[in-house]
Order: sequence, then C-alpha cells, then structure tokens
Amino acid sequence: MLAPERRPEPLTSPAAATVFTMVLTQGPVSRVEIARRTGLSSAAVTKAARPFIEAGYLEELEATERSGPGAGRPASPLAIRPDREFFGGVKITGDELIGVVTDLRAQVLTSARRPLTDFAVESVVADIAALVADLLAASPAYGQRCHSLGLAVSGDVDRAAGDVRYSPFLSWRQVPLARLVARATGLSVTVENDVKALTVAEQWFGEGIGAPSFALVTLGVGIGCGLVVNNEVVAGSHGVAGEIGHIPVNGEGPACHCGGRGCVEAVAGTAPILRAARAATGDPALTIDGAIAAAHAGDEAVMAVFARAGHAIGLAMAAMANLVGPERIIVTGDVAGLASYGLFEEAITSAFAGQAFGAAADCRLILRPRPFEQWARGAAAVAIQTLFTL
Amino acid sequence: MLAPERRPEPLTSPAAATVFTMVLTQGPVSRVEIARRTGLSSAAVTKAARPFIEAGYLEELEATERSGPGAGRPASPLAIRPDREFFGGVKITGDELIGVVTDLRAQVLTSARRPLTDFAVESVVADIAALVADLLAASPAYGQRCHSLGLAVSGDVDRAAGDVRYSPFLSWRQVPLARLVARATGLSVTVENDVKALTVAEQWFGEGIGAPSFALVTLGVGIGCGLVVNNEVVAGSHGVAGEIGHIPVNGEGPACHCGGRGCVEAVAGTAPILRAARAATGDPALTIDGAIAAAHAGDEAVMAVFARAGHAIGLAMAAMANLVGPERIIVTGDVAGLASYGLFEEAITSAFAGQAFGAAADCRLILRPRPFEQWARGAAAVAIQTLFTL
Repeated sequence: MLAPERRPEPLTSPAAATVFTMVLTQGPVSRVEIARRTGLSSAAVTKAARPFIEAGYLEELEATERSGPGAGRPASPLAIRPDREFFGGVKITGDELIGVVTDLRAQVLTSARRPLTDFAVESVVADIAALVADLLAASPAYGQRCHSLGLAVSGDVDRAAGDVRYSPFLSWRQVPLARLVARATGLSVTVENDVKALTVAEQWFGEGIGAPSFALVTLGVGIGCGLVVNNEVVAGSHGVAGEIGHIPVNGEGPACHCGGRGCVEAVAGTAPILRAARAATGDPALTIDGAIAAAHAGDEAVMAVFARAGHAIGLAMAAMANLVGPERIIVTGDVAGLASYGLFEEAITSAFAGQAFGAAADCRLILRPRPFEQWARGAAAVAIQTLFTL
Repeated sequence: MLAPERRPEPLTSPAAATVFTMVLTQGPVSRVEIARRTGLSSAAVTKAARPFIEAGYLEELEATERSGPGAGRPASPLAIRPDREFFGGVKITGDELIGVVTDLRAQVLTSARRPLTDFAVESVVADIAALVADLLAASPAYGQRCHSLGLAVSGDVDRAAGDVRYSPFLSWRQVPLARLVARATGLSVTVENDVKALTVAEQWFGEGIGAPSFALVTLGVGIGCGLVVNNEVVAGSHGVAGEIGHIPVNGEGPACHCGGRGCVEAVAGTAPILRAARAATGDPALTIDGAIAAAHAGDEAVMAVFARAGHAIGLAMAAMANLVGPERIIVTGDVAGLASYGLFEEAITSAFAGQAFGAAADCRLILRPRPFEQWARGAAAVAIQTLFTL
C-alpha cells in the first residue's frame, strides 16, 4: 500500500467504515437494520451515512412499505452506487498478467491479458503499467474514476509494506512492488498474496458474506487455502498460514518439494497428477488436458488417478475442518482444476465425510469452478478493501 | 454461566475491562504504558482504574524513578491485589474430581481430589459441591471472598448456556451443569471444555501472554489442541475445533474410534501406545507405566513405539502450524504423557521440523510436563475470565 494513503472524504471514523462496508457487502439495507446489526445508534448510522450519500457512494432507495407489528415509518434502504468509483486488479502468474476493471461491488466490467516474457522487476512493472493503461482506456469513466489498483501474486507478500518478500516462480526477493507500480501508473497500489486476495473477494463479495468463519481451498499447480476465523483473515505469526497443500495425509507417501513427505500437494497438484496419469497410460507425452479427457472418456486407470487425488484433498480439508471449524468451505481452481471437477468431486466429498470429526461433517462444501480472471478480481477486491478500511 | 451474571462493581465499561485485564495479565504496569498498549487516553485509563483501586482489586505501587529521554513524572505502576478474591476450579475426569482454589492471578493456593463412583448427574453434582465445601473450608478467607467456580470437562460444552452438550465418558447429553452446581454451591458457575479451559489459562496467565496467536497441544488418552488466533480462542462454527488428534497423518494406518483412518490419536494416544508396547514385548499385562519404564531402561522395541507416536504427533503439529501459523506451540500432558516426555521429545521436534512449511519451522515448541491439577487451574482461570469480561 502506498503511503500517504488515499482516503475517501466521507471515511472519517471507524463507525463510518462499518456502516459503509455493511451497505457495500450486505446492502441494500435500511438504517434501522444497520443499527441493529452493528450495535450503533440510529443517529450514529445516519451521521455516518450522510457524507457517503453526499459524495455519491451511497444512495437512498425508494421507501418500501413495512408491515407487521412494530412497523413505523417506511424504511428507505441504503444502497451502493457501484459506478461511483472503479478499481483495477492484476494477477501476476508465471506466464502472463491477467487484469480486470471492476466496480465498487467487485463486478468485473472488462478484462485483458498480457504475456510475461521477462521476469526482471522493471520489465514486469512496465508490463503491468501497459496492461492497466489498456484496461482504463476501455471507457473514459475508468480513466476519471479509477484511482486504486490491487496486485495479486503467489508467494510471501507483506501487504502493509507493499513488498513481495519472496516469489518462487518470479525468483523475486524483497521487491517493493506497490511503490514501483504506483510510480508507473499514478494509482494507489495494494499487493497481496493471491490466495488471500481471493479469500478477501469471497469475504466481502462472495460466499463468505455473513460467515464469521470460512475457508477457501484452491486447486491447481499448488493447493492453497485461505482461512477466515472470527471475521479475520488468518495471516500466520511467521507469515505462513493456509498451507493445506502440506498436510501429510499420505503417510510415508511421495516426497514433496517442501522437504516433507506425503503432502497433499505431492499427490493432488497438477504435476503429480500428470505424472501418475502418464504412468497409468504409458504415454509420456500425455498432457493434463489429455488426462482429463481420458478420464471423462472412462479410462479407469486415469480415473483412479483423479480419485486418489480427490481423496487426498478431501482428507486434508477434513483435517482443516477438524482444527479450525469453518462454517463452510469453498473449493475452487484454475483451468485444469476447473475441467477436472467432475473427476474429483465424489472422492473429495466422501473422503471429507469419512474423516470429519463429529459435527465438523456439517461444514458445507461448495465446489465451484471459476474462470481464471477471478484471481484478478480478487486483486481488485483487495484494493476496495484497502480503500474502505481504517 | 449462571444468569443473572455476577459483575464486580467497578466493571462498568469495555474500557474498564480492558484496563483491568491488562493489569491482571501483564501487570504491574504504569497508566502511561496501559494507555500506549490499549490506545485509550490517559484520562480514560485513570477513570477506569480508580473504581478498581477503591474496591481493592488494584493497588498503586510505589513510584519508580524513570530515566532517559522523555522521562516525566515518576510512574506509579498499577498492580493486582491477588487475594482480593478467590476462585474455585474443578476438573471432572472419568475417575475423580480434582479441585483447586486460586487467587486472582490463577495461582493455586490449595487443591483436593475426590473419587467419582457414580456418573449420575445428581451424584456428580453432589460430589462437586462436597469437594468445593472441603476446599473453601481450608481458609476463612476463601469462604468470604470466593464467589465463582469454573468446571472443566472433556467433550462438547456450551459455555454461554452453561450446558454439557455431550460428554462421552460420563455418558451425559444436554446436562445444564452450571445451573445445577450453582444451585448446590451458591457460587456463580462457568462450564468449559477442558482443553479450552487450559488454553484460557495459558492465554491469561501462562505462555500465551502477549501472543496474538498460539496453540496448546495436550497428550494423553486423547490428543487435543486449543488454538488462539488473533487473540481469540477458536471455537469452531459447528462446535468442533482443535481436533488435532484426528488429522490423518498415517495414511491408511489404523482405524480410529472417530470413524476415520490413520488419525494421530489412533497411533499416539495412551491406549494405542500401550497396545503396541504389549505387542512389542509380548507381555499382555504390561501397563503404560511399565512401558514407560521399559523404554527408559533401553528396551529398543518399546522405545520405537514411543518414537513412532512422537513422529505422528510432530507431523500433526506441523500440519496445524502450516495451516494456522501459531507464534508458539505449548505441548503438555497428563501423568502418563508427563513421564513419557523424554521418550517423545526428539521424535516430535524432528518430525515437526521436517514437515513445517518454510518459516512455519520458526514456531517455538515449548514441551512442558504439567501436574494434573493444572486442568483444575484451567477451570479456575475460566471463572476469572468470565468475571472480568464484558
């Protein structure tokens, strides 16, 4: 995050932040209901909302008639004006940049991609700036009312400082990315770990709304997990948290790149799945898409590979649920994960049910493929969160 | 917890609770330092502290000279008066009740035990009341200034309602224990799960002080875990959390009583250790104490049994650290766990180091045997927490 921080004028107090984010994430909602849910007085809610209305962030919808006991004046719900401000989001992968522009509610309005050919910091920064310029050129309104950009990257990110501390696939260490991109784009920039960014998107704008505790599991080359406990994203005291991919559910099973043994990721990541599918078919040139197609076509040996992977994922999810007790778990993935969902699903859910302890089995599993641009939307959600959190 | 709640007179606001608990858990500490750590104004700290001083809960220590830059008036630290009030704590096990009386800082002043011969609710309640009467009779001051009692029991406990929802070893379901014991003793009663109670004791009065995030792992018949994340005990959305004993680190290993396979508890709980030690020695009458003695005497087959158990425990602790990133992990246990520490320690620490992901390996492990009465002290700590939390 770039200091000095940009702050919307109406954001003058913690109460103002509370009221605005409630309308943003749960609106339209009446002042009375906001007061009830936040514990603020009606006067405090009205006082907090007024400057947001004046600045065009909120509007009052037409009064709806109320009925039933205790019905007083008709309530005029407060609602977000989603096009009051726009937000950029860019996910940095090992191959390309994926960018979006969203509105205030993190709805994707436009998206674009740009291949990454050079991992040198200055080159990536220039590519990000060029992609953002393309995105903002899509509408004059974006250029006028987009001031914040979120960046999502896998690895160890210090969001408060704006630094990428370590990115394995870019081979970056201690890169002050927020500062560099802010200088190149003129925008306020927030950098966040990609799984945490996706978790924020779910917490504010997705399946996590209203859940004090939930988990997000991402399937793909790596297997990641974002955790929200007591309404806060779990960051880890030593910078490590959510490493569900390194729960050793396979006993003395395969060695993992992390140095451990039997890790979920060593069985159910894209690479080990492909390796096992090649071994099962005897075809050393098989691709992951080919493996998915073979399994869908009924190749039992390849189907068994996916079932083993799903079993490992389900066990790890149960271990996580037994430990932290999320209200629900959202399982999502990138392109390969997406296409292989049908292959995983039964193995995941049955392994989870078998290993969940007691009432942890009541945890709801939401398996949902997502287009890859959702990672960029996560980055934009982080920019929104940064702007409206005191 | 029994309604209507008992509240100390000076506890009039959240700020008062914050100031008092800071002195209780981190004192002696000056008003200036309290203001710095809490973000309250000096005036607010002084206003909050005064009624506690008047009521005899806090006292002002003699001013200490300050030196160095910025030294102003000498600071008079605030300190707890530990004997202002006393607290009872009772741990209910399958064999006996263990009770303590503590002071305000959860220091154990006296302890007693009472065998449990009958698990009928009314019989256990009568036994608790008799044990508490014995404990309070140890000093006239206890009778005068002990008004709160904590109860700790393994199983599913609804602390807010004061109910034991399910206790497997007592075969209780939905027992309103707080209400029944309050009626029998005349004390305000809080009931908590035993591992959570021990976690509260660490958080307020032990190794958890000042750590926003830590874990407590308990070894014994069961293998439990208390988690504190972002300064709050993790309760689990479905009432399940901290079930580290049911992380499946042993692949398709032994079936567990929970219905899962390869659970830590199925390898490293007291019963499977004893079973494996009997198989290793060919002695079907071997006791757990005998197994511990044999391992200490150098019986390699029995030593290997303990090493396997320690390895499983270390893997599960690493899985937990990879997921939630505690700042430190306290490992403790009951009598058998206590005596076998030397046998576990190396296997636990090496398995943990091998499986911890990246900086999660920096998590500090504190292996510390504890006398069994610490479980009762945990119950008293919960009674203290109930009294001073708004």
